[in-house]
Amino acid sequence: MKLATFEANGKVSYGAVVDGGIVDLGKKLSFADLRALIAGNGFAQAKAAIAGAKPDVALNQVRLLPVIPNPDKIICVGLNYEDHVVETKRERTEDPALFVRFANSQMGHNEPMLLPPESSHLDYEGEIAVIIGKGGRRIAEKDAYGHVAGFSCYNDGSIRDLQWATTQWTTGKNFPSTGAFGPWMVTTDEVPADSVLTLITRLNGQEMQRATTQMMIHSIPRLIAFISVFTELAPGDVIVSGTPGGVGGRKKPPLFMKDGDVCEIEIDKVGVLSNPIKAEKV
Amino acid sequence: MKLATFEANGKVSYGAVVDGGIVDLGKKLSFADLRALIAGNGFAQAKAAIAGAKPDVALNQVRLLPVIPNPDKIICVGLNYEDHVVETKRERTEDPALFVRFANSQMGHNEPMLLPPESSHLDYEGEIAVIIGKGGRRIAEKDAYGHVAGFSCYNDGSIRDLQWATTQWTTGKNFPSTGAFGPWMVTTDEVPADSVLTLITRLNGQEMQRATTQMMIHSIPRLIAFISVFTELAPGDVIVSGTPGGVGGRKKPPLFMKDGDVCEIEIDKVGVLSNPIKAEKV
Repeated sequence: MKLATFEANGKVSYGAVVDGGIVDLGKKLSFADLRALIAGNGFAQAKAAIAGAKPDVALNQVRLLPVIPNPDKIICVGLNYEDHVVETKRERTEDPALFVRFANSQMGHNEPMLLPPESSHLDYEGEIAVIIGKGGRRIAEKDAYGHVAGFSCYNDGSIRDLQWATTQWTTGKNFPSTGAFGPWMVTTDEVPADSVLTLITRLNGQEMQRATTQMMIHSIPRLIAFISVFTELAPGDVIVSGTPGGVGGRKKPPLFMKDGDVCEIEIDKVGVLSNPIKAEKV
Repeated sequence: MKLATFEANGKVSYGAVVDGGIVDLGKKLSFADLRALIAGNGFAQAKAAIAGAKPDVALNQVRLLPVIPNPDKIICVGLNYEDHVVETKRERTEDPALFVRFANSQMGHNEPMLLPPESSHLDYEGEIAVIIGKGGRRIAEKDAYGHVAGFSCYNDGSIRDLQWATTQWTTGKNFPSTGAFGPWMVTTDEVPADSVLTLITRLNGQEMQRATTQMMIHSIPRLIAFISVFTELAPGDVIVSGTPGGVGGRKKPPLFMKDGDVCEIEIDKVGVLSNPIKAEKV
């Protein structure tokens, strides 16, 4: 299933993407939102509810929101592809480098990614988002896939000058409407445990990044095992699993995104997340 | 007022500390919790409710919880005192170095700080916690104090080997029951805008850190102004404003906390936050 959070006619709901439209599961099931559906393991109920159902609303008549608008935690992975480690001239470390995004920095598919007036250094980072299904602490790597609810595209939009102004990346990773998350999540029944996912980033139609999950330094199961040592994962938590080489800020000369650009993140088996870049008016 | 979140007879509530006990405001006011009271600017209602009231329960009969157990954001400041910058041999930067703690890493006064089996490098960091009252974005430094609800003690317990394993500090700053927050918050009516607060950390009764707010590199108003550029602050958000020199991990030889130790953080006008150290049993 493809599950999304959306707004239609001024009302926020969640549903399943079917035949170019959305079956509104918020009207059919008792879960308050998609995070609650995941926490309640409501996938079988959702599947039953959409069997033979027609879309309630066309995709082009909804505003897609971040797949999980209200995750308890968004844990982002840095330096998880060798070519990106090389381009940043940083050291490869045994542990994954982790930083945090706040939920209020996120937006959905087709929503503008905002370039704030404080910077002109807005960069893309195409990434695979892993949405946690079953929570837990100290999850064994071999059990990790059973804790995944699904996958989505993520554009970890980064304000590079502010990210790099100190050793800690928090500032440049949390501006409002810089974390694009969507268009929807694909549940693990459509992505078997041994699947190889391919990730592509395009800026104005031109390919900027391409990688597969096989190229990750820390695999998704390893990330889940590592992270769950120091924090209890909860249903709906999001692990943004790192960006490959090809970011704009490390090009010579650097390439940053500007008002009017369009950035797309594509993952096979998921779809394409597209966001126009827009200068924020203050 | 001194406002606290507590558990008594198996029930979580919030209240005001009066005469060695707590007036249970959860029974008298309509706010769901202390964060909601702050968001609803319920300070005058709280003050009226405790006028002439006797404590509902003695302090020694409650379990104090983190002052705000469920903040939307906990933003921690690194390297905010010159002597700490020097002992870490890091560079002083124009912007504050910021990292994030998750709410599930917190515990209250007298609750054990847990040393996980994955490490023996648990260190203290005495800090002043600033609790945001009125939220906002791009708050001017001159207006910042008006956005503060109050102050509390914080022990930003750090697993040093895991904190330092990569450039990003997230892993070592988020183990469960390492972020001590309490015992209560003191509201700003008792701490005028020009107050100098003194912060002291004691380990087993011995003074390890001492500083005043005048020694901060980035003052509290400057922190609020800086942070609110990149994220919208919300009522109940917590800014943990940095630790002074004297941390155990930078001593020669390093000094780490062990099972049976007791760590205290004292701030004049607030009180003393005390936590025993306990080895976590897995």
